[in-house]
Amino acid sequence: MNITKWRTYLVTAVSRSAGRSTPEVVAAALAGGVDVVQLRDKAATDRERYETGLRLRELTAAAGVPLLVNDRIDLAAAIDADGVHLGQTDLPVSVARERLGEGAVVGVSASTVEQAREAEAAGADYLGVGAVYGTDSKDVSGDRDGIGTERIAAVADAVDLPVIGIGGVDAGNAAPVVEAGATGVAALSAITAAEDPEAATAALRAAVTE
Amino acid sequence: MNITKWRTYLVTAVSRSAGRSTPEVVAAALAGGVDVVQLRDKAATDRERYETGLRLRELTAAAGVPLLVNDRIDLAAAIDADGVHLGQTDLPVSVARERLGEGAVVGVSASTVEQAREAEAAGADYLGVGAVYGTDSKDVSGDRDGIGTERIAAVADAVDLPVIGIGGVDAGNAAPVVEAGATGVAALSAITAAEDPEAATAALRAAVTE
Repeated sequence: MNITKWRTYLVTAVSRSAGRSTPEVVAAALAGGVDVVQLRDKAATDRERYETGLRLRELTAAAGVPLLVNDRIDLAAAIDADGVHLGQTDLPVSVARERLGEGAVVGVSASTVEQAREAEAAGADYLGVGAVYGTDSKDVSGDRDGIGTERIAAVADAVDLPVIGIGGVDAGNAAPVVEAGATGVAALSAITAAEDPEAATAALRAAVTE
Repeated sequence: MNITKWRTYLVTAVSRSAGRSTPEVVAAALAGGVDVVQLRDKAATDRERYETGLRLRELTAAAGVPLLVNDRIDLAAAIDADGVHLGQTDLPVSVARERLGEGAVVGVSASTVEQAREAEAAGADYLGVGAVYGTDSKDVSGDRDGIGTERIAAVADAVDLPVIGIGGVDAGNAAPVVEAGATGVAALSAITAAEDPEAATAALRAAVTE
């Protein structure tokens, strides 16, 4: 797995999937060429996420795509995910590393240069930085007013880690995020709520690779 | 550790502690003779619960009292707790056992005889059964209308596991819970919100042992 090649990153949100299951949306995103999937599904219970996660593990493994879990180190271990993504108020990176092993991917949300430097010092493998464009979604950690692509550039300059821009990003506005220095972009609604999640993923991919 | 000797069980709830920290309340409950402590603190972030949990581990270890963690297997492992307490929608008992080892204590919430039998079959070590007397607390899992001491008796008859009655229990109404067949009682507000948590614990203990 090479994190520096992650261009498109799906964060699942069953509450926004228009009645489709998370495995359905993930299967479509995989067909559309998504590079990495994070199981989030905040509206689901732990047991539901566990059941969903086992299915996502099958789908992503078959596609050769890494699977991460939001917040929960125990859930990541239980479904044999490749790692976790931690927010600023979650368990520390050191705990994730200890429980999941040195080979696990540990991502951290950061909204500022200071948080980014702290996460790098703590041993994070990549950063989720946002909300880039502002969002009303409670599904995005950090500053929801929109930090802008200038902040993406500042963070990318300040650390040596891959930066994934998140928050309000879609095929129409993704290019400036990678031009600012992000490795790739994460999408929730832009894929999950799309009429055609496969096409939306392909469009997002095209926007950041062309 | 002998679970069948648990008479008084504290569930922490920092939101109900009148400004006192959870370690302060736990220290007082330990001085009052509490038999087991569960870190819950639903209003806290994961990082706060981790920091609190490390302190509770010191306090409970010094007192020779077991420490459990609500819901979170990763947090239990991170603070070297003795086990976890799982609700009906949490990760399965099998996952807790696999992650924490055979020696860990795994408790499960049950409101009905059917749930109790399922938890026993899944390998639970004890059951938290309630809400015994009804409660408006969202801090209590299961049926909040009050299942009554008859249900405690039915569950205690149906399974071989220790039963801890929870929900609206205080020193004034605890005796009928153990008379119905519960090993002990769990308290949230009756200890945490008390003016003197040490005296409240001692009073609860007296009510269930005399």
